[in-house]
Amino acid sequence: MERTLREIADIIGGEVLGEDRISISGINSIDRASRGEISFFFDGRYEKYVGETKASALLVSHPIKTYPGSQVLVTDPKLAYARVAGIFAPPVPRFPGISHEAVIHDTSSLGRDTSIYPMVYIGKDSVIGDNVILFPGVFIGDRVKIGDRTVVYPNVTILQDCVVGSDVIIHAGCVIGSDGFGFVRDGVKNIKIPQLGNVRIDDHVEIGANTTIDRAAIGNTRIRSGVKTDNLIQIAHNVEIGEDTVIVALTGISGSVRIGREVIIGGQVGIGDHLEIGDKVMIGSKSGVYKSLRRGDVVSGNPTMAHRIWLKTTGLINRLPRMYEHLRDLEKRVRKLEISNK
Amino acid sequence: MERTLREIADIIGGEVLGEDRISISGINSIDRASRGEISFFFDGRYEKYVGETKASALLVSHPIKTYPGSQVLVTDPKLAYARVAGIFAPPVPRFPGISHEAVIHDTSSLGRDTSIYPMVYIGKDSVIGDNVILFPGVFIGDRVKIGDRTVVYPNVTILQDCVVGSDVIIHAGCVIGSDGFGFVRDGVKNIKIPQLGNVRIDDHVEIGANTTIDRAAIGNTRIRSGVKTDNLIQIAHNVEIGEDTVIVALTGISGSVRIGREVIIGGQVGIGDHLEIGDKVMIGSKSGVYKSLRRGDVVSGNPTMAHRIWLKTTGLINRLPRMYEHLRDLEKRVRKLEISNK
Amino acid sequence: MERTLREIADIIGGEVLGEDRISISGINSIDRASRGEISFFFDGRYEKYVGETKASALLVSHPIKTYPGSQVLVTDPKLAYARVAGIFAPPVPRFPGISHEAVIHDTSSLGRDTSIYPMVYIGKDSVIGDNVILFPGVFIGDRVKIGDRTVVYPNVTILQDCVVGSDVIIHAGCVIGSDGFGFVRDGVKNIKIPQLGNVRIDDHVEIGANTTIDRAAIGNTRIRSGVKTDNLIQIAHNVEIGEDTVIVALTGISGSVRIGREVIIGGQVGIGDHLEIGDKVMIGSKSGVYKSLRRGDVVSGNPTMAHRIWLKTTGLINRLPRMYEHLRDLEKRVRKLEISNK
Repeated sequence: MERTLREIADIIGGEVLGEDRISISGINSIDRASRGEISFFFDGRYEKYVGETKASALLVSHPIKTYPGSQVLVTDPKLAYARVAGIFAPPVPRFPGISHEAVIHDTSSLGRDTSIYPMVYIGKDSVIGDNVILFPGVFIGDRVKIGDRTVVYPNVTILQDCVVGSDVIIHAGCVIGSDGFGFVRDGVKNIKIPQLGNVRIDDHVEIGANTTIDRAAIGNTRIRSGVKTDNLIQIAHNVEIGEDTVIVALTGISGSVRIGREVIIGGQVGIGDHLEIGDKVMIGSKSGVYKSLRRGDVVSGNPTMAHRIWLKTTGLINRLPRMYEHLRDLEKRVRKLEISNK
Repeated sequence: MERTLREIADIIGGEVLGEDRISISGINSIDRASRGEISFFFDGRYEKYVGETKASALLVSHPIKTYPGSQVLVTDPKLAYARVAGIFAPPVPRFPGISHEAVIHDTSSLGRDTSIYPMVYIGKDSVIGDNVILFPGVFIGDRVKIGDRTVVYPNVTILQDCVVGSDVIIHAGCVIGSDGFGFVRDGVKNIKIPQLGNVRIDDHVEIGANTTIDRAAIGNTRIRSGVKTDNLIQIAHNVEIGEDTVIVALTGISGSVRIGREVIIGGQVGIGDHLEIGDKVMIGSKSGVYKSLRRGDVVSGNPTMAHRIWLKTTGLINRLPRMYEHLRDLEKRVRKLEISNK
Repeated sequence: MERTLREIADIIGGEVLGEDRISISGINSIDRASRGEISFFFDGRYEKYVGETKASALLVSHPIKTYPGSQVLVTDPKLAYARVAGIFAPPVPRFPGISHEAVIHDTSSLGRDTSIYPMVYIGKDSVIGDNVILFPGVFIGDRVKIGDRTVVYPNVTILQDCVVGSDVIIHAGCVIGSDGFGFVRDGVKNIKIPQLGNVRIDDHVEIGANTTIDRAAIGNTRIRSGVKTDNLIQIAHNVEIGEDTVIVALTGISGSVRIGREVIIGGQVGIGDHLEIGDKVMIGSKSGVYKSLRRGDVVSGNPTMAHRIWLKTTGLINRLPRMYEHLRDLEKRVRKLEISNK
């Protein structure tokens, strides 16, 4: 597929500096782009490539003198890059229609233009929306609802009674609706607490590969609209995650945690059970959160402290051996002074 | 399904205060319960709901004056909740019989009343017990044994020669019997050490979603009776985990670690190879364990220390910048004293 | 299968001390070996078993006086163990030929002697090499290339356009080529950056179970020859990992990180985005890496410091409460001295 630079600029609302009738066949990074491709510049680390790139056009936030080709001035070149990549991205590959090698219970309903690959299983009384794509190895339990245009990649398991919204992307290997980790001790034995709730995922959510989201003990585990999770994340039973929150890989969120909207959680973070994390909180990677956090808090560390304190603290921690020596030295000197002062 | 409060009280061995002929249709949390549902109260955080809940009955450890409905007095309301939830929990959904769309080698045997969903694969010479449920996408390798009433959720892989006991639950996406991570360097190249052993899981074990348990290099990786693991846990080759031990999500246990019984391991813990963890040890979340721990130890931190020391230490660590300043200040003042004392 | 000790010694280039015509039926650990089995001794922790083992022969680096049986002298007994285990290891179980219950698009090509199990899906225009084994539940997307003798275990997902080399082992549940975690904020909404690149895995790589490797935003996520990863690892988009690097379980590597060759990364490590990790670096388990590391660096901690400093620091950290008290005590004493000096 080819587009003129003018067409691209019109789609993203940019202003062309230079020739706008050139034909663009794709988008590429500034160091890899070939003639005929458009590229983008917003990360200072790539400045060295601006003068030598072969890209035929560049998305920029201000005119770049060292670049000889056409430039498209935009407010946010990274956002423009995302949108131009969307123009050239191939669509998600669809199986044409409903495979005869899928197993679909006849009490379940499929919307229009669904793409159901072979080796999909759909249980009883489930409702699959229009234009949904279910890849091979997807398991859909009984009474599951999936909204329109949602894509479920291979080998994903969505267990009974879970509800997934529209325009959701669930990457491969995810498990949605596994039993929450609920036990109570009876003497030394761990008695399972039956997990009677479900998982409810709202619209425009994206769940990273091999992530697990447990069903609620009672009620819902709830992932609100616009949430984006990276891979290998654990979301325990009865957790609620607010709109547009972002969670990086290998993070674990314990039971009944309530997370606000537009929160950013780094990788390998752990959040203790029943905590409340306010809106727009930022939690640094590898943090251990044992207390609730208020709207706008920016924290790091295990346990968490204000991020700026954490920077200072960790900047000093490797001086601990020297501090310890210093303390011992001062002790001796003070003792000497005390004796001579007697 | 409905039960009278009297029937429920009899099953769990509780004493009814108030009307016991009322009909109960389900169990729910105190803030969500509707008329006709029973609820429970054991967590102080929910006290505010006691006066206003719509629940028709409450499981309690002592009479609650502010609650007007029937109460069931029990020793442990959380345990009673688990048992009442068990009364109302729907059974695990079963495929009726053995699907023609499963692939089962004819040298393998299936017990009575097994439920084998479509898209299950069972290799050679495997033995599946009575009342086992195997969900779609389950792979059972050659010479695997699975005990009675065990449930294996979708897309679980159980590789050759592994042994799974009775009444075991393996949640979706688990991998049982992958090769242990064994390599030896030959110059710069890593030479694979063939992993000749297996994984042996005893009765009444529950394994969380997307957990991985590697086969032993030689002998068994052994998960003893009553162990409960959360999701996304890594258990390396030749690990042994004692009875009724509980492990929270995203924890990694290195090769040849021996863990005792009734141990509680928090989330995101790492345990170094070849260590011994005694019975009834408790390991706080995010701990890094590099030394063996003795029976009853309660530890936290990376590296681990006694939990109470860790609380004190981490309570002070954000004062490190001030301590550093203080030390510099004292240095100056002591030097001044030393000079004036000369 | 049986071999004489002489045959085994010849294969691994060892010198037999004692009878070399004895027949060996397998290899086992020194504490578990039976008569007829060979064992090995290189780990001091197992010294107590040398005198009492039932093994008929022992792989050793120097003659052991307390062991009465035949000994095979080798330079590296652990390497010899790996090789002898290779002699006795059963081959990976193969499905005979191409299952009629696999779904293979007719534009894809399969090499000679491939073993394609039932419930495998292969998309369009993919190329599968000779002697490849694809287990049940494997999904191969469109335009994927897989080299000769590669083994892909059950329920692995390899998405479109990814390239896997020869002699690669991908353990069960892995996801290769999921979308990189790329978003850009448009106001409060997270706009997905389409991930246009792929994953390229070179020869002789082994990927642990349930590991996820994201496709590049643009270009390749690249895993070079000889890399070995443990289970449950996250490798983000555009990461490059150099030859023969080893990564332990539950580690997360952020986007665009470049890792050198022969690097060793412990478990539960996190590496921040865009960093460069030099050749032969060693990173201790649970480390948080926020700065690039130079060739040969040996680091630990969060944030990382030289490993020897980390050992000193963490050896002192639990004295922080006492140091704090000491500092307060010195303050009082210095103040007293100052007053009396006035």
